Amino acid sequence: MHLASEESFLALIDGYFPTSNSHILLGRGDDCAVIQCPETLCLTSDLFLEDIHFRRSYFSPGDIGYKSLAVNISDIAAMGARPLGFNLNLMIPDGLEEGFWEDFFQAMSDLAAEAGLVLAGGDLSRSSCLGLDVTMWGQAPGRYLQRGQARPGDVLFLAGQAGLARVGLAVLEGGGDPAAYPEAVQAHLRPRLHCWEALELAGQSGVVGLMDVSDGLARDVPRFLGPGLGADLELGPEGIPEEVHRYCREQGISAEEQVFLGGEDYALLGAASEAAWPEVRQAVPGVRRIGQVRAVQDIRLSGRRVTEMGFDHFG
Amino acid sequence: MHLASEESFLALIDGYFPTSNSHILLGRGDDCAVIQCPETLCLTSDLFLEDIHFRRSYFSPGDIGYKSLAVNISDIAAMGARPLGFNLNLMIPDGLEEGFWEDFFQAMSDLAAEAGLVLAGGDLSRSSCLGLDVTMWGQAPGRYLQRGQARPGDVLFLAGQAGLARVGLAVLEGGGDPAAYPEAVQAHLRPRLHCWEALELAGQSGVVGLMDVSDGLARDVPRFLGPGLGADLELGPEGIPEEVHRYCREQGISAEEQVFLGGEDYALLGAASEAAWPEVRQAVPGVRRIGQVRAVQDIRLSGRRVTEMGFDHFG
Repeated sequence: MHLASEESFLALIDGYFPTSNSHILLGRGDDCAVIQCPETLCLTSDLFLEDIHFRRSYFSPGDIGYKSLAVNISDIAAMGARPLGFNLNLMIPDGLEEGFWEDFFQAMSDLAAEAGLVLAGGDLSRSSCLGLDVTMWGQAPGRYLQRGQARPGDVLFLAGQAGLARVGLAVLEGGGDPAAYPEAVQAHLRPRLHCWEALELAGQSGVVGLMDVSDGLARDVPRFLGPGLGADLELGPEGIPEEVHRYCREQGISAEEQVFLGGEDYALLGAASEAAWPEVRQAVPGVRRIGQVRAVQDIRLSGRRVTEMGFDHFG
Repeated sequence: MHLASEESFLALIDGYFPTSNSHILLGRGDDCAVIQCPETLCLTSDLFLEDIHFRRSYFSPGDIGYKSLAVNISDIAAMGARPLGFNLNLMIPDGLEEGFWEDFFQAMSDLAAEAGLVLAGGDLSRSSCLGLDVTMWGQAPGRYLQRGQARPGDVLFLAGQAGLARVGLAVLEGGGDPAAYPEAVQAHLRPRLHCWEALELAGQSGVVGLMDVSDGLARDVPRFLGPGLGADLELGPEGIPEEVHRYCREQGISAEEQVFLGGEDYALLGAASEAAWPEVRQAVPGVRRIGQVRAVQDIRLSGRRVTEMGFDHFG
């Protein structure tokens, strides 16, 4: 990397992120970082690119720093694991406003500290477009919660909201007044994470699987179940956030369908045996039942067949 | 990620990269990959972006796939470590030629197989520009070879060539006939790796440090030494590749200075005690002495003071 100000940029990063940590045997500044490992490690990488994953017209520098880290923390949480460290690769265009990186690093380092994450290393490059690439790793206390483990009759549950971020995105993209939808806008810009619930769920033996809902229930429920299985879902009306109800009323669309289609909420979707469900619900207050696994590869929403596109009007 | 053909793209990847491996407990397709860890792991991430790190006008799809992986393998080797696995994040623009990804994955998977690397996971995104982001991890048999460990009097040595890739880049960018400089061009497009030498060097107790020379000796020797130390270097004439000699003769410039400035060769720069050097040289045939560490922060090339810009004409 031959950024003119590479050294000063690295010094800026050092001002926000501690360089040493008991997890890190050799930190930033060498060819590799060296980390102290548990027996198994879970690893994830995510791109976060301007005009694909975010727009600078409504994402503040802090929002970009927060969300690019948050989406990876959510992947770690979705394994029932605790995040340990991350690498940060930055694609840096010309012409960013004064103070952009200070605000970006402040928000990112606040979230990193809250999640117990250490910045181990990364790369910087000039680029025509602004982009981030975060690689994160974490450790599960015991087992890892996977997809494809649910069985017919299992309860499907959700930790967190669904549908809010979709309304937030629609409003931010010009479909309404952001000030009228503060929760929905916040859900899109700075999604709430469910790290605590994830670790609690991993400790419940009746929980058979977990996944983060980044692309919406419509796309992610089939991925969670795997081939040959379906689900009966009931998403409303009491589980639907007020702003989603209000937005859908104004638009004359189905709120339950919006909750089903909505993406980027980073809620956690899980499955538990029917027998274990009462205990799971009591142990982890933030989770609520949204349906049940079926032995046929078919998703039904309040009894009506749905596809990835919403209600199946030809079905 | 909402790429129209995401599923078929993932299926294409599966055709080139095995999905299971003893190192991988849970492979591609979940929120995270889960890997079986040694006690310590070294980790590196590198961006590889169009028009910053490569040009499609002279990099074939296979060259891009090869080099984006190779630069990370070199970082692992530079720790004296053996690569184990990698994550691949792809930024995918519209309008790539038919067969681009097949050629790209063929070259990348050939190199991955040769290096013993498994593809654990990653991310796909549409993008305005073509770009790759590879995160790689590896394991050292015993210790890790770091920077900043050399002492005054230690021998500095190199595994691999320096200066060839710089000539290759100049020729490819329009400064000459690529057909007249096949080795130099190849050094830029598909740098030769030094994994075997790295592991051998890690096994030599007299070797005190190692680093990969990605930005050229001029920038990387000071980084390798750290503050307060300098070096007396002798880079020529017998250690200089014939194509570098010929190119510099044609251009009327100093071949030794070109070798000193040249970047992207991915040679390995190391240090060993003077007492251990004869044994190191015998044990690892590919290495050659290029100088000695000095107690003053000053780099001299054949006795003349140099800076990051080459010979210091004002010194």
